[in-house]
Amino acid sequence: MSVLVVGSVALDSVETPFGKAEDVLGGSATYFSASASHQSPVQLVGVVGEDFPVEKLQALSERGVDLAGLEHAAGESFRWRGRYRHDLNSAETLETRLGVFSHFRPKIPAQFRSAKYVFLGNIDPRLQLDVLQQVTAPKLVACDTMNFWIESRRDDLIALLKHVHLITVNDAEARQLTECANIVQAARWILDRGPHTVVIKKGEHGAFMFTRKSVFFAPAYPLESVFDPTGAGDSFAGGFIGYLARTDDLTDASLRRAVIHGSAMGSFVVEGFSITRLLTVSRAEIDQRVAEFHDLVAFDKTHPA
Amino acid sequence: MSVLVVGSVALDSVETPFGKAEDVLGGSATYFSASASHQSPVQLVGVVGEDFPVEKLQALSERGVDLAGLEHAAGESFRWRGRYRHDLNSAETLETRLGVFSHFRPKIPAQFRSAKYVFLGNIDPRLQLDVLQQVTAPKLVACDTMNFWIESRRDDLIALLKHVHLITVNDAEARQLTECANIVQAARWILDRGPHTVVIKKGEHGAFMFTRKSVFFAPAYPLESVFDPTGAGDSFAGGFIGYLARTDDLTDASLRRAVIHGSAMGSFVVEGFSITRLLTVSRAEIDQRVAEFHDLVAFDKTHPA
Repeated sequence: MSVLVVGSVALDSVETPFGKAEDVLGGSATYFSASASHQSPVQLVGVVGEDFPVEKLQALSERGVDLAGLEHAAGESFRWRGRYRHDLNSAETLETRLGVFSHFRPKIPAQFRSAKYVFLGNIDPRLQLDVLQQVTAPKLVACDTMNFWIESRRDDLIALLKHVHLITVNDAEARQLTECANIVQAARWILDRGPHTVVIKKGEHGAFMFTRKSVFFAPAYPLESVFDPTGAGDSFAGGFIGYLARTDDLTDASLRRAVIHGSAMGSFVVEGFSITRLLTVSRAEIDQRVAEFHDLVAFDKTHPA
Repeated sequence: MSVLVVGSVALDSVETPFGKAEDVLGGSATYFSASASHQSPVQLVGVVGEDFPVEKLQALSERGVDLAGLEHAAGESFRWRGRYRHDLNSAETLETRLGVFSHFRPKIPAQFRSAKYVFLGNIDPRLQLDVLQQVTAPKLVACDTMNFWIESRRDDLIALLKHVHLITVNDAEARQLTECANIVQAARWILDRGPHTVVIKKGEHGAFMFTRKSVFFAPAYPLESVFDPTGAGDSFAGGFIGYLARTDDLTDASLRRAVIHGSAMGSFVVEGFSITRLLTVSRAEIDQRVAEFHDLVAFDKTHPA
């Protein structure tokens, strides 16, 4: 099964305590695609400007990412410049230039409209809803969002929830959207408004997945060094939704393995700038990390007699 | 096997968004004992002043906590007054009156000196070392500490580490002690200085256990409401060390179950003020919560064929 992703394709300039990168591949759809491509074919819908070094996307095409939905518009590409301090926990945005992204109206190519797995990256919830009107019969619609849309488009976002099966948000966004300080209560609030699955990402503290019947928790992989945290959330989403598309299995057991695959991809991407590590990681390395996640939390309930 | 605990016995006054409590039982040794008593007999060493309502400790005696090492000194008891804001993540200390605790010199009663399991609660590292000189042949020595001692008694604390098998610290303390921002590196730093096991507590974000051979992670139980977070860390330690004493088994498998028992007790204590919930919780409830922790993180590595 293919995954359709709609989101940003950007040029990032990032500074961390370990180095600097200028105008490297970034954006939610880019990270998502590079990550999901390890599990399933990907169909990408986004926009870039005239200045975009499209040859850099060749690596994605080679990994099975179909770029037929990448619009080339007149104007500048979306650029983000940010910096991480020593603790690497939060990015400081130095500059955001939306460029052609500010007028982005996603047009889903005819051959993408039958997608069964759809990920609506972090864009205006009105556009996310518009995308859904262009796809015919999706089996799983997942979306992401951010504080900006929760503030400025709250009603649209809540309306979108009715049409979404799964949402990924970070803990601060979950609290902001629901006005519940408690994460469990926040998840219940969202579950009551449409989605059957809510994933609450806590960055270096792991991720919770709530359904109406169960709660699952995946820790973040205990890395000895984090090089650049940019894109961890979208890489998580890519591994997660990509795994579901590959298995075409939405049982609780499969959703749990999907969260772990997401966590594994999130742990790889932060080992390098941009999507570099996602391009080199092998299936054997992914399987090995999934096994390490299993050992990390494994315990027997009772003492041997 | 009994557990010997040395630490504070205090009167706490706490205000949370859900209510107020005045002069209720508090202190590290109190929380530890109430928690550990569900697993094994406890021997408590501490000090109270003339004003201490000793009848309140009757509930601990009834649970198998031997108070023969509780010194009654001339002066006021240790009192702490604190407040939690809406997010419940950090206590704001309004007043600390050390009283008789400021002159505490732990004297281990003769019948306690053969203890095999020893927990050195958060007191001056010089006193923690002094306690170790009074016990004859412990099988497991565990200690806790806090930012105050890391700042004021760093060399003594590092000297103590050579004599300690296991240390519990929170993530901020681990970073402060080791000057490593990364938790994994911080744990390695401590493991290089004596302890064979390092438990790094992250409060609502769970706990890591590092040994030289393995890493284990236990999430915090996803509670819908937290009433009063006071004592969660000491209740964790009580469940953890108490479980090890009960099983007298220090294998990796047993240490992992011990962390889960600690997490379970930490999740119960925050359901009420002081140690009230620890006095009412049943073995069946503890076993049930351990099983819930198991389900919370359970996943199969591979998709069924």
